[in-house]
Formats: sequence, structure tokens, C-alpha cells
Amino acid sequence: QIPIDASWGKGIRVEAKDSSFSLKLGLRFQTLYEGEKYLESGNWNEQLLIRRYRLKFDGYAFKPNIKYKMELGISNRDTRSGGVDEIGHTANIVLDAVVKWEFTPGVELWVGQTKLPGNRERVVSSQNMQFVDRSLVNSRFNLDRDIGLQLRAVQGSGVVFREAFAISMGEGRGVVVDNPDNGRQYTTRFEVLPMGLFKSKGDYVGADIERQPSPKLAIGVTYDYNKNTPRSRGNLGSFLMDTDNNFIYSDLSTWLVDAVFKYQGLSWNAEYAHRSSSDEVAGFGYGKGFVTALGYVFKSNYEIAGRYTTVEPIGVNSSIGAAEEYTLGFSKYIVGHSLKIQSDVSYMDTTNDYIRFRVQMELAL
Amino acid sequence: QIPIDASWGKGIRVEAKDSSFSLKLGLRFQTLYEGEKYLESGNWNEQLLIRRYRLKFDGYAFKPNIKYKMELGISNRDTRSGGVDEIGHTANIVLDAVVKWEFTPGVELWVGQTKLPGNRERVVSSQNMQFVDRSLVNSRFNLDRDIGLQLRAVQGSGVVFREAFAISMGEGRGVVVDNPDNGRQYTTRFEVLPMGLFKSKGDYVGADIERQPSPKLAIGVTYDYNKNTPRSRGNLGSFLMDTDNNFIYSDLSTWLVDAVFKYQGLSWNAEYAHRSSSDEVAGFGYGKGFVTALGYVFKSNYEIAGRYTTVEPIGVNSSIGAAEEYTLGFSKYIVGHSLKIQSDVSYMDTTNDYIRFRVQMELAL
Amino acid sequence: QIPIDASWGKGIRVEAKDSSFSLKLGLRFQTLYEGEKYLESGNWNEQLLIRRYRLKFDGYAFKPNIKYKMELGISNRDTRSGGVDEIGHTANIVLDAVVKWEFTPGVELWVGQTKLPGNRERVVSSQNMQFVDRSLVNSRFNLDRDIGLQLRAVQGSGVVFREAFAISMGEGRGVVVDNPDNGRQYTTRFEVLPMGLFKSKGDYVGADIERQPSPKLAIGVTYDYNKNTPRSRGNLGSFLMDTDNNFIYSDLSTWLVDAVFKYQGLSWNAEYAHRSSSDEVAGFGYGKGFVTALGYVFKSNYEIAGRYTTVEPIGVNSSIGAAEEYTLGFSKYIVGHSLKIQSDVSYMDTTNDYIRFRVQMELAL
Repeated sequence: QIPIDASWGKGIRVEAKDSSFSLKLGLRFQTLYEGEKYLESGNWNEQLLIRRYRLKFDGYAFKPNIKYKMELGISNRDTRSGGVDEIGHTANIVLDAVVKWEFTPGVELWVGQTKLPGNRERVVSSQNMQFVDRSLVNSRFNLDRDIGLQLRAVQGSGVVFREAFAISMGEGRGVVVDNPDNGRQYTTRFEVLPMGLFKSKGDYVGADIERQPSPKLAIGVTYDYNKNTPRSRGNLGSFLMDTDNNFIYSDLSTWLVDAVFKYQGLSWNAEYAHRSSSDEVAGFGYGKGFVTALGYVFKSNYEIAGRYTTVEPIGVNSSIGAAEEYTLGFSKYIVGHSLKIQSDVSYMDTTNDYIRFRVQMELAL
Repeated sequence: QIPIDASWGKGIRVEAKDSSFSLKLGLRFQTLYEGEKYLESGNWNEQLLIRRYRLKFDGYAFKPNIKYKMELGISNRDTRSGGVDEIGHTANIVLDAVVKWEFTPGVELWVGQTKLPGNRERVVSSQNMQFVDRSLVNSRFNLDRDIGLQLRAVQGSGVVFREAFAISMGEGRGVVVDNPDNGRQYTTRFEVLPMGLFKSKGDYVGADIERQPSPKLAIGVTYDYNKNTPRSRGNLGSFLMDTDNNFIYSDLSTWLVDAVFKYQGLSWNAEYAHRSSSDEVAGFGYGKGFVTALGYVFKSNYEIAGRYTTVEPIGVNSSIGAAEEYTLGFSKYIVGHSLKIQSDVSYMDTTNDYIRFRVQMELAL
Repeated sequence: QIPIDASWGKGIRVEAKDSSFSLKLGLRFQTLYEGEKYLESGNWNEQLLIRRYRLKFDGYAFKPNIKYKMELGISNRDTRSGGVDEIGHTANIVLDAVVKWEFTPGVELWVGQTKLPGNRERVVSSQNMQFVDRSLVNSRFNLDRDIGLQLRAVQGSGVVFREAFAISMGEGRGVVVDNPDNGRQYTTRFEVLPMGLFKSKGDYVGADIERQPSPKLAIGVTYDYNKNTPRSRGNLGSFLMDTDNNFIYSDLSTWLVDAVFKYQGLSWNAEYAHRSSSDEVAGFGYGKGFVTALGYVFKSNYEIAGRYTTVEPIGVNSSIGAAEEYTLGFSKYIVGHSLKIQSDVSYMDTTNDYIRFRVQMELAL
């Protein structure tokens, strides 16, 4: 048995005395119950599953300014995206495999596979979400993970600015075939934090469990151009083919604008997304969406939160369906986002209306 | 290098000094050779494979009364059950992902995916088996793992009673589709240990390697009702469909009765299983079976053991075939069940008789 | 947090104070960019992917002379070989699962799945390669991994001799079906090191990053007989079937001869391979090949290296295509083979000539 100094929440971390490397092990899983009552048919559909199961290794190697992150997704929902030829018809396990080199203070070069600098809701870890899961705006318009290079910079202390620029292959994580038609993806993001940094990196944590002692605001804008992608939503969605089994392509332009405000347990989030193309090819996910959420964490670490979401297609051939969703969430953060129970109930107004009830337990070491 | 106090068999365990969590890492694999001589055709079929390869994380989180277990099965035999649509057509890696909350002394609530409180032979870890593998009664009638809630209680010290009750989804581990027709599974188990607790939890360890200093007996009875399952053996087996690709269902009732006795190296086990339904639907695994085993561990940690198994179908449309098996096993427990070599030879009396020889090596950290 | 004495490169290792076991954790991944310019069509094909992602556990158990190695390959390129019925139609994750018992000094018995004693280029870890990847001679003729028994011995100190003999199933790693037609594989290897052992086991490390202080040479010869294999290249390649879906077999004889010389940063390697059969069955990989490489590591840990490769079929029905390849490699070993960037450019003279450019980053803990 190895007694260690750290307490839970800090993770299990080893560091070489000569500062030649560090390694932190993270382990977590989510058990999700989801039931949907379809209002027209009266049908009740339900699922109970291990929604996410993750193993994470991060730290630094050689020098503290060379960091790495290696995250694996192991549940069947995490890995089943690999069941197509382009992703090797195998379990798609590797989420992150990236090296982050801070070659000059405040500027990092990232090499490998990880999340693109897209909308805030996506970049917030699935461990740290305010509701049981991300919104429909995120699932339709997020940029997900990809493999490539990223340049990330941060400046300022009173007012903080962050910039990110990425070049990636454009078809998402785990692709093992040639880059179709060599169409790459270009992502640019700007962020401004006019009231300075959030306590405990709270701008990328759902719910104000940190109870920010002073008001904090962050605004982000991402523009993404995904040239010649054959996937319906760029980095995600089906690989689209014509009747001769050749890829069909579209050049996708995506705007993602988001804001978060937090103060003493109160949090407000909003995101706007817009994906379009000069060539509207049938089957691609052109559309726009808006989501906003308001929540309050009581001192007892119970939270109540509400969310409104709307998405709609652009053009007549989009794969995006129109929907409006109203969500009310209740959470109990037993040990922050490391041991929590979250539930929400939603009314979905779409072609086949339903009421959805979900409850999820998260355990993270 | 980190020198640690513990010796092998205790596992590699870290614990926070403030008792906010503990983590134990377990690693193990089995290398199995299996050869079968078919008596009529004279054919010799053989396999050599990594039978099981497991990674296990367990411990407590937040408080010592909140335990977790996260076990992964990684060999191809462990993961290939995921190759159907209902399990995501991906590697079915996650075995256990469960939180066990002892909310009052002696009573635990389990949430997540793990073994159901079924027959003893199944609940004994595959690391701790007396023979190379479990019996035919187990493979035909066990309840395996499922996802849901379990309530577990224990009382008494002279005479010990244990009770378990589970509600689960009913189709086994790793299912990612909606619960078919919402038919849940209900499992109840009672155990009595009239001579008190076994040393080193020996009632759930194959072979009396603990050499119980006084005679110990445990008797268990499980009743399971799996409503509207489309799988031939409830939590296991094919998903059955009609010619229009709609699920076919049956309501399965299963009785499982087992007993184990151990004393100074001697062990005796017996199990009876019975699965039936009010509606006998073609293709489901209705049937009954009985297995009994007797073994003796010499002080040199060699063991000789014998096992008799019989299974037979109920009704004319069962997927269970009649079989009788006679098994003789020899084992050498080098370091208990952590480093051992086991072999057995069986005569199988079924529609196509064969003699089977197996030898297996287990290494467990 | 656990402060540890070791520095990076030694890995993260725990050892019990009573010497009952040790465990070393290894983690690594490679990010590979590969672009090919086809000279006739002018097409440019490119890939960027996580080429390898590995988790490794090794150490000793019970006594220091019982060693184990458990390595997992997790990237989609590592696991996709499992997508055939014979390998379970699942992710083929387990690379090594082997116990090595030194039952008498200098002689080890290996049980389980690991690399066969084949050509040096294959046995050198993919972490320790001199170029971005192994040569065409290796990909066409290597013996890869298999499951079975190996006997390994070493003698001498001035002049060192090594012998290895293996019996294995003959169809490669992860097979879950019966051994086709019971045709086993027999491998024998002899090595001589006339100038004694290399510093830091440099005979199985690509590039002379150890800067051998005195000249060192190693010569190896392997003969392999793979009886009744249905795979085109023995342990690798397609499972060949006739039009009735019965396996087609061939008895493959393979000779592998290799040599390595190293001195003060200079390294020279050469390998010859020859695979034939008395029965030339259409679709099997009969052929021969030769590769030689010369490299020099500067004291700044930059390396320049060149490689010439040629392969050609034997007979008219071989699955091997004729090819000649000229490769020029540049590497920077930042922390030996644990943090490095490698690149190479190749001209491939085959039925469809191309120039290939590759760059790869390796991070290994």
C-alpha cells in the first residue's frame, strides 16, 4: 500500500524528483437512465447504460513546458463511432493523444488529436456539465475532435485575451484512410474575459460550483472552414457517398459564438451556431441554433437550472431537423463534479414531440 | 522507482492520507490450451488463446462506505460479444462500472453494471475457479452481468444471512439500444451460512486453498424473473427476431440453488438450475441442470478435483441441448489463485461425444 | 501526489519491499503524417493519424526470475486487424500477454502471446526504430506475434551466443477459432555477438544513440516452418479460402538473416528474407527481399540515415509485388527514443511509382 498526500479531486499524480516528468491518472464513468414519452403515440422508450467510461493520463514530459494528454473512451457509446470503414471498423477508443509545447510563455503549439477550439459547451469536459448532457445546438454544430496542429495563446491579466488557430484533417477523430480530396479544416477562435480570469478555470466548468467571488464574464467567437469534407457535419456524422460509392463533398463554414457569466453560484450561458456553404449539397447539416441556460447552485451544493434550445435547418436539403427544447435540471454536487447526481426533464417540440426524463450519476477519480 | 510495503497478492493499492479515496489496480490474464477429440469422427480440434485479459480498478471514493469497481475485459474473447447492433457493433470492453453505497451498516445500494446475484459458480471470479473454466450448468443458466440497482444486506455473526434484490434492464452488459418492450428483470437471492463466515471469504473462492480451520457451509437460493427478454438465455445469447426483424420475447423464470462446504483443504460444491416460462417460445433456452464437484487441496498446494455436470432442455423448442459431462481436474496453486496452472480432462456425452483436455495458466497482479 | 526517485526514461516502476513483485507502467503514442506523390497520375495522397498508442505493463511476479509482459495496442491502426471472423470481429487489442520463467540461469521458458524470434527489424520495438517505420522487407516477410511456447538461451561473455526455439499456433495474434488443420509453426533462431554484448542492449535499438564505445556486431539467422497456414503471409495477411469457404493451406518455409554493427554513433543494418513452399498455392506471399541501412547520430542527437530495400515474388502466383525503395531519414532524438521527431523521404519503384514523405513524433513515458 502506498499512502499519498493528495486528497481526492486532485487525482493520483506522480512526479519525478528531478522534474523530468509527471503523470496523473484519471478514471471516471457515468451511469445514465433516459426515458422518453412520445406524446402522439404514447410510447415510453427507455435506456440505462454506462454512458461514458474514461481513462486519462496527463502530465509533462522532459520539461514542465512540454505537456501531454492521453485520454481513452471505453464504453460502447464512446467507441462505437469506429464502426465504419474510414475509422477502421474497430473500436474507436483514443480520444486525445496530444503534446502541448509552450515554446514561449503564454504560447503553446499542440500536435496530435484533441478537441478543436470550438464552442464552449463542447470544450467543457463531459465530466463538468451543468445538465445531464450537452444541448442539441452542440450535438448538431460542434466541431468535436480532430488531428492536426493548434496554436494557442493567452495575454493580459486584468482583461484577458485568448486566441487559438488550428489546421486539421477535417474528418474527426480516428480516421485511418487517406484524407479525402486533401480538404483540410481551419479553425480560429478568439476569447475575451473583460473581468479577468475565473476562479478555478470556471469559464470551462458547468455550473458555478466555484461560487465566483466577483462577477466574471467570458465571450468567445469561433470561425471554422472545413474544406471538402464528406461527413455531414464536418468532423462528425455519416460519410456521404454517391451511388457509385464515391465521396460527396461540401465546404462548410461554421460560426460559433458563446458567452458565460458567473457570480456567487449563479451562472448564465448562451451559444449561437451557424453552419452554411456556398454549395448546398443534399445531406449535409446546414443550419443554425441558439441555446441559453441559467442556473443557481445553493450553498448546500444543490443546483436548479433551466435551458432553452432551438435549432433549424438552412435550405431544403439539410440533414438538420427543426426542434425546440425546454429543459429543467436538478443536480446534487456531492464532491463537485467528481461525485454527483444530475437529473433533467425536457419537453421536445419537433416532428415527433416527446417529454424526456434523465438521471445520471458520475464518479471520477 | 516507488518501493511499496505491500507484498504480492494484496495488489497495488494507494490510499489518500486524509481517507478521501483509495485505488487498487488489478491486472491479470489467462493463457488457455484446449483440445477436443471427437469420438465418432476422430477429429482433433484445438485452440490456444489469451482466454481472459483484465484490468481492474476498485476502492472507495469520498468516504470508505462509498466503494466503486471498474473492471475491463480486453481479450478478444472478452470483447467479441459486442459484435451485434444492440451492443453497438464495437468491442464490448466494460465489465463492471458500479458504485456500492453502504448507507447503513450491513446494507448496500449498488448502482451500475455488475454481476447479478445469481449462482455461486458465476459470482466466483474467473480468477478464483477450481477448474479451468465454469461448468455447462453455468454457461447455460447463469444470470451474468446487467445494469440496474441492487440492494444487498448481511446480518448475524454465528449464523450469517445475506439477502440481495436487483432490478435491471434484463438484456445483459453493454446494451446501447432502448430496453426492448421495457421488460425489466427482477432477481432475489437468499444465503445462509449456518457455521458462520468463511475464512478469507472462502465461500466465493473455488478450491479450499484457505484450508478452512473449522467446517463451513453456505447455501444460496436465487429466483429470477426476466420479463419480455429477446435474448435466448435472458441476459445472454442471441437477440431473437422474427422474419420481419422484430424482437421475439419470452418471460423467463429461473431458479438457481447452490451450496458449498469447505474444511481443511476439502471442498464440495453443488448447483441446481431451472429455467422455464409460461409461454414456450421456440429458440429460448428453457431447461434444467445440475453440477457437483469435490476437490482436495494438498498441503503442497496441488489439488485434485472431480466434477459431474448434466443439463437438459425443457420442452421441444429449447435452444439447450442435452449433455452430461465428467471432469477430472489437477491444479497447482503456486501463489494461490494469483499464479497457478490448472488442467482438466472431460468426457462429454452429448449428440457428438468428445474428450476434452485443457490446461491454463493464470497470472494476476 | 507521489514524488518518485526515478527520472524519465526509466519509466514508472513500483517494487514490493519483500521482492514479491514489481510493476512498470509504460505509455506511448506516435503521431504520423504521411504524404505520397504518385508520379504517373500526379495524385497527392495524405494521412495524419495516431499510428500507435500503447499501454505496457511489465515486471516480475512471485520471484525475480518469473517475469511478465502485458502490452496493449489501442489506436485504430493497432486494433483493426481484429475485423475478421477468425479474430472475433472485435478490436484486436492485446499485443503481448506472456510469462517468462528463467528456470535456470541463462535459459528462459516463455508461455503466451508475444513476438516470435524473427528478423531483428521486427523484434526492435516500434518505439526504437531508426526510420519512421520498418522496411518493406519486414512488412512482407516478418513473423510477427503468435501464441505458444518459446525457449530462449544465452551463453558467453566475450563472444555471446543466443538461441531461441518456438512452437506456436501459426496464425498470429488474437485468433479465437480452432487452429486450422492443427498446423503448427516452428521457429529457430541463432545469434552470435563476436565482440560481446552491446551497451544498453543496443543490438535491439535502432540508431546508435548509445554511441557504442567499442565496435559491436551481431548476426542472427532464423528459420521458420509454418505448417498448413491459411494466412497469406503465415502469421499475417488474409485468411485464404476457396469458393466453398474452406481454408486453403500452404506450408511456408522462411529464412531470415540479419546483421547489425554499431560504433560511436555509426550504425549499419542488413537483413535478407526468403519465403517459399514446396507447394506453390496461389495467393500466398512467396518471395525474397533485402534491406540495408546506414546511419550516423551526431553528438547533438540529430541523425541522418539511408536505407535501400528490394522485394520480389517467387513464382507466378505470389501475393508479393516487386518493389525497390530508396529512403533518406532525418531524426532528432530529444530524449533518446522517448521523445523524438523523425522524418523520411522515399522513392518507391514499383508498378505505380511514388515519392513518399513522412514525419512522426513519438512520446513515451
